[in-house]
Amino acid sequence: MIDPAVLKGFRDSLPGDEIPKKRITRILEDVFTSYGFVPIDTPVLEYTEVLLGKGGGETDKQIFRFHDNGGRDVAMRFDLTVPFARFMAAHHDEVGVPFRRYHISKVWRGENPQKGRYREFMQCDFDIVGADNAISDTEILSVMHASFAALGISRYTFHISHRGLFSLFLETLSLADRSIDILRTVDKLRKIGEDEVRKQLSDITGSAENADRIIAFITAGEGRSFMETLETLESLSGGISEPSRRMREIHSLLTDLGISGSFVFDPSITRGLDYYTGIVYETFLDDIPSIGSVCSGGRYNDLASLYMKEKTPGVGSSIGLDRLMAALGETGSPLLANQSYADLLIIPSQGKEAEAFSAAARLRAEGIRTDMYLNPDAKMKKIYAYAETGHIPYMMTFSDDGFSVKDLRTRETMTGEAAIERIREESRH
Amino acid sequence: MIDPAVLKGFRDSLPGDEIPKKRITRILEDVFTSYGFVPIDTPVLEYTEVLLGKGGGETDKQIFRFHDNGGRDVAMRFDLTVPFARFMAAHHDEVGVPFRRYHISKVWRGENPQKGRYREFMQCDFDIVGADNAISDTEILSVMHASFAALGISRYTFHISHRGLFSLFLETLSLADRSIDILRTVDKLRKIGEDEVRKQLSDITGSAENADRIIAFITAGEGRSFMETLETLESLSGGISEPSRRMREIHSLLTDLGISGSFVFDPSITRGLDYYTGIVYETFLDDIPSIGSVCSGGRYNDLASLYMKEKTPGVGSSIGLDRLMAALGETGSPLLANQSYADLLIIPSQGKEAEAFSAAARLRAEGIRTDMYLNPDAKMKKIYAYAETGHIPYMMTFSDDGFSVKDLRTRETMTGEAAIERIREESRH
Repeated sequence: MIDPAVLKGFRDSLPGDEIPKKRITRILEDVFTSYGFVPIDTPVLEYTEVLLGKGGGETDKQIFRFHDNGGRDVAMRFDLTVPFARFMAAHHDEVGVPFRRYHISKVWRGENPQKGRYREFMQCDFDIVGADNAISDTEILSVMHASFAALGISRYTFHISHRGLFSLFLETLSLADRSIDILRTVDKLRKIGEDEVRKQLSDITGSAENADRIIAFITAGEGRSFMETLETLESLSGGISEPSRRMREIHSLLTDLGISGSFVFDPSITRGLDYYTGIVYETFLDDIPSIGSVCSGGRYNDLASLYMKEKTPGVGSSIGLDRLMAALGETGSPLLANQSYADLLIIPSQGKEAEAFSAAARLRAEGIRTDMYLNPDAKMKKIYAYAETGHIPYMMTFSDDGFSVKDLRTRETMTGEAAIERIREESRH
Repeated sequence: MIDPAVLKGFRDSLPGDEIPKKRITRILEDVFTSYGFVPIDTPVLEYTEVLLGKGGGETDKQIFRFHDNGGRDVAMRFDLTVPFARFMAAHHDEVGVPFRRYHISKVWRGENPQKGRYREFMQCDFDIVGADNAISDTEILSVMHASFAALGISRYTFHISHRGLFSLFLETLSLADRSIDILRTVDKLRKIGEDEVRKQLSDITGSAENADRIIAFITAGEGRSFMETLETLESLSGGISEPSRRMREIHSLLTDLGISGSFVFDPSITRGLDYYTGIVYETFLDDIPSIGSVCSGGRYNDLASLYMKEKTPGVGSSIGLDRLMAALGETGSPLLANQSYADLLIIPSQGKEAEAFSAAARLRAEGIRTDMYLNPDAKMKKIYAYAETGHIPYMMTFSDDGFSVKDLRTRETMTGEAAIERIREESRH
């Protein structure tokens, strides 16, 4: 016998997880396509050089990398952004720009598994490339809002800021040359707290005063409205500027759309990654902030610079589907609660197979998920246990008088079309 | 610059391929769930021993296998059957039996790429495990029929046979000990032709007479009805038997369901693989038989014997999605023809952004896929080219008099609610 174990950091997805994951994916896809986003897919395996750039670097150890049978240095993708950049360089002319794509698929990282973190997980990315203006920024933010609304999450807040504004501010302090270290430190605010950030900023900037000023900047959103924050940051960063005008335009469009209430201007949002140049954002669920951001991203100046000369500016977001599912589970979302395998279980008892099959065909054609019990000679106790495992609410049996339907939760028995109507009603939810 | 190339045998999926693939997948998933099938997923990477069994063997070279950073011997799955067997051994008690699952996902094989064959491709498997009777066989065949009907394929035929009947026949010839070689040879009938099969069978059985008898058996379906074929094979295999009774029951249930016309009894179907023990089947599209079987499978006695002692009989099917897509393309299926990125393109011209965004919000909420053009200062020629790339049929512009809609195919201009009604109508197809 071989042990049927999966690798460390990997896991099977059972129907109780996979049914809601499929449902959530469909809801998101419907939102994306309603905004004219189109799906693409890329290979799971790529040349390592394509994924890591020439030389590779630190990321190296965290990816699944090997030599294939042809001796090629290959690796499994560790995110969906790098393959998208390579895709745009390869297919720029075919797909045309502006281009809106979404990509929902697995990625792999070899990092040490921790609670809630796996070596194989689902990413959901959506980006608009080929435009750099307030309307494209707003489109992405609007998709995010529509996605969370469609998932039935009632309380969520998008924390948004602008990298350019932060850069201008650092220029006023003559700290532009240390911006990467400063941004990375600020990005840890939620994790390590204000005191520790202040301490590290003092070390980086060489002065407690600078640290205080940066802290004042990144906490300027607290207790202030979006527009108040914007004006405060404008004055801290040397007056009205291109980035501040962009934020104003975005806020105006969000207001037109009637969704500006879900967006707060939070200058502590920087995103650690170097490539963001414009707006940056994270998404927090008001009821479980501890889970961290469930949807993050921003605007970048040039997506595909590794592979092509032409500039491809863009703006995009990434939803961590596994983290989102965990969050939905904690908030008791009905998307996760109702995991029935079928709406109805039909028992094809001996001599009644023809009736059972023809009833099943009719109900299935109507969209009622109809399971047929396949060990019809089993004891009733076993059949009940089977229905319970799959959370199947109704059972249909046949006698010489026709069919009857039992509600397995109440043990109530019904007959005739009224019974089918009730199953149909419930199956719609 | 790094060359944005993909690995040999791999390919990107552009929206023109990915949109219909998603549509086809949804149609299939809706059929599967209407039959009470539930989705599962398994890791892409597994212990090599789990995938290949102890020792490995011939398959070895055709898989992507390596040592991970922890020194484990791992491999990427090459089908969805072996991971399902491992899954059942690991989760038998949790999921309960009978268990109906489907799994639509990628698999990888390192074989040399040929026309239409890739190293990364999509499989779509559906199985019922934990039951061995005519009703479970019929359920699988019925799902296959419903799937092809739902895809709008008008002419398809399921070729079905029974391994047990063939075995009984070989026993009458005292050739049971050579059955694996014989089955594999017969399986090549379509590829190498009757004469070559006869020659090889003569070699295997040591007699031209045996070869002739086997040829007579496997061609017994030609020009005969299902029941005539069954009776002929019964007499060739020593009379009424367990397998022939099973075929009779299945045929009777298919007749009750009104779908028996799509099934022919074709004893030349054997499936090369050792593990089939009961019914076996392949599916051919009447208009392009040359593409080969697009959905194949059969009944097996014991799925998970490598990993557990308990027997898990089952019956299952596999659709090669890439081959099916190619076939649908060749038959001019509307599933592939209509690949529009959106139903409508809105132009948010300067000063009219608010109107454009609020119109988009309304139309998207109604399910109309609405793209917003993001370089609104572009020349009309460029906007038209953009709409053409995405096969977007309508364009909406704004003036001080309100909006107007242009049909980009006829250049006809419309205004008011009637215009929106027309877009809505067309978007439903």
